[in-house]
Amino acid sequence: MASLAEARALDDADPLAGYRRQFAIPPGLVYLDGNSLGALPLGTAARLGEVVRKEWGEGLVRSWNDAHWIEAPRRIGAIIAPLIGAQPGEVIACDSTSVNLFKLISAALLMRSGRKVVLSEPGNFPTDLYMIAGLEAQGLAERRLAERGGLEAALDEDVALLLLTHVHYKTGAMHDMAALTKAAHDAGALVLWDLSHSAGAVPVDLNGCEADLAVGCGYKYLNGGPGAPAFTYVAQRHHDAILQPLTGWMGHAAPFAFTDDYAPAPGIERMLTGTPPILGLAALEVGVAQIAEIGIDRLVAKSRALGAFLRAAMARFAPDLECVSPGDPAARGSQLSFRHPEAYALSQALIARGVIGDFRDPDILRFGLAPAYIRFEDCWHAAEALGEVLASGEWKREEFRQRAVVT
Amino acid sequence: MASLAEARALDDADPLAGYRRQFAIPPGLVYLDGNSLGALPLGTAARLGEVVRKEWGEGLVRSWNDAHWIEAPRRIGAIIAPLIGAQPGEVIACDSTSVNLFKLISAALLMRSGRKVVLSEPGNFPTDLYMIAGLEAQGLAERRLAERGGLEAALDEDVALLLLTHVHYKTGAMHDMAALTKAAHDAGALVLWDLSHSAGAVPVDLNGCEADLAVGCGYKYLNGGPGAPAFTYVAQRHHDAILQPLTGWMGHAAPFAFTDDYAPAPGIERMLTGTPPILGLAALEVGVAQIAEIGIDRLVAKSRALGAFLRAAMARFAPDLECVSPGDPAARGSQLSFRHPEAYALSQALIARGVIGDFRDPDILRFGLAPAYIRFEDCWHAAEALGEVLASGEWKREEFRQRAVVT
Repeated sequence: MASLAEARALDDADPLAGYRRQFAIPPGLVYLDGNSLGALPLGTAARLGEVVRKEWGEGLVRSWNDAHWIEAPRRIGAIIAPLIGAQPGEVIACDSTSVNLFKLISAALLMRSGRKVVLSEPGNFPTDLYMIAGLEAQGLAERRLAERGGLEAALDEDVALLLLTHVHYKTGAMHDMAALTKAAHDAGALVLWDLSHSAGAVPVDLNGCEADLAVGCGYKYLNGGPGAPAFTYVAQRHHDAILQPLTGWMGHAAPFAFTDDYAPAPGIERMLTGTPPILGLAALEVGVAQIAEIGIDRLVAKSRALGAFLRAAMARFAPDLECVSPGDPAARGSQLSFRHPEAYALSQALIARGVIGDFRDPDILRFGLAPAYIRFEDCWHAAEALGEVLASGEWKREEFRQRAVVT
Repeated sequence: MASLAEARALDDADPLAGYRRQFAIPPGLVYLDGNSLGALPLGTAARLGEVVRKEWGEGLVRSWNDAHWIEAPRRIGAIIAPLIGAQPGEVIACDSTSVNLFKLISAALLMRSGRKVVLSEPGNFPTDLYMIAGLEAQGLAERRLAERGGLEAALDEDVALLLLTHVHYKTGAMHDMAALTKAAHDAGALVLWDLSHSAGAVPVDLNGCEADLAVGCGYKYLNGGPGAPAFTYVAQRHHDAILQPLTGWMGHAAPFAFTDDYAPAPGIERMLTGTPPILGLAALEVGVAQIAEIGIDRLVAKSRALGAFLRAAMARFAPDLECVSPGDPAARGSQLSFRHPEAYALSQALIARGVIGDFRDPDILRFGLAPAYIRFEDCWHAAEALGEVLASGEWKREEFRQRAVVT
């Protein structure tokens, strides 16, 4: 049975333990919400200060060249690439995850003209489903949803694209990327993987799976900061054919020639649209560089060990709480989620005890395990606090039931 | 004839002179490129430090509520609104100018179904034309270009949208917003104004002109920093009907209910797509708050006085250089542009002398007059330096002809 002594022994033996000191974790806080907003890397503030005071303040417009701002989207994409099994020139950082989803769904529909169906699953992260809906309103797409287990059967000759989130944001259940990609290809469809809850925490091999397209989030396990730019992946073999409709000047073959007619850039830059958001990219670069330095294999090993320990601790302190995450670590993202009808009040009562997890409407209590900075002892304290919150009934207090704007 | 003494007298009498000290202008630099990248407000670095260290580092995910991050897009929009003749709830800050153009062009096509033509002018800023091209590739739009003077005649029953940039990025020529908006409406079309070179520098009265839609840039006269979020305007009367296709979760009526089906937010928030870029928004907020504090009337008066003085100084030092900007201050943006076949080399030779103007392919030398921080003496020095560069022929040196990536 899990114990505090065991947690501390695991932390002492953790080869990543030193990396925690590179993040600004408030003392006494147990932060199990790095899959909603990753913690602040210590290097970010200094780097942003340099970008603002020196590159912007002193360099001014010259910094597009002199400080290599113009190369930031591709440069950061190249750092992300090895975390997701991609080549450097296949990934680029830009816009939000939602905007990138729109670009890639649209591009897939153009590449599979004659087919209009975008297949996904009910309960996928809302923005993924909503971006299909936007194209549906334009008459360009038809949304089809099938439950897990029924996705392969729903792949017929009308399906242009299979769009799935690799790790489910609520349950943490992980799709079999290789098998589903193959099934989509066998049906003549392309596949788009949303890696928002994967990148930097679980093994992803886009090239190995022959995945066509992917997007991912910069502000979760990549620690890019609130609303950080997202990233887009396009397999090299599609670079000549792919056309996305948000054909802004930064995706042009010669952006500074200022011609009236659009000509797409030859490589991954054709996925760009507007002027790169340099402040957000600067923060993102610090975050991804740190995660890349640790390396995905060590992060995955730590993530799985944290998950196993948190499961054991929860079994001790809250044995009756239903766990909705898969038991097999290889089938699960870097999180454990539990179902309770009063999950919101529980999450608020935990916050009052210094344990930040996440509530997801209507009844999910989620603990994210960011392997770069979470300790086994954090898992212990979270489970212990939850046990006490449940046993005391303190979550029934009115103050814990009032919903904030952002839940 | 313009003189240095006159410039200094004008600076001494300038009611905005004190605002220059609120910007980080490098000593000795004449920066006439604030319409490409606005200067750094002194308050930005401190504010960003606070957002990073305190709100992100300490507040972590709680800051979406506690630090009011979630309200930033609307809050900043409300500060921009009076600069462009709009009501607070009609403007929202998000994404890039290009992405916002795509949303609004798409929305206009949905609102004028049956019409497919988007009318613009050749030589409009490229990204405006390219975003129409993207919708053309999707089969949703048809691009029609007509020269100035011929726009009214090109407005027929096929035109869904008239899309124009209010102040031309090269010449500074300003469209008659009221007249063209009326002409578009008379033809049953909507109108979308790109205010990238207008907001914060020239008078704009969107409500007074009954304009339907507008976008604008955050990193020029609003001093929001490199790649700052842009803004979108939708006239109140369209808020119930408008639907844009980038229907991300932040545009949903209840983003945190996590439902499978999209329902647009009731107000301007329906123009949102992904998670707001908090770092970029924080910097933008400092910039727009400062410009709003100065007030658009005083900025316009200063801008016109600067323009008149620079014209006079250029007439003294470079009398033979062709000015392509309108002579009438009321028909011109906050810039003066000149044509020369070696404009690139001239701009580089000027930079070597500490005068930063802008080159625009193929032959335009552009001086932007950001009224919040540019002095009359800056205009004098720029004209004097250009006169010397032309007279000496130093621009012919090889080093001034080598094109950088970003020109």
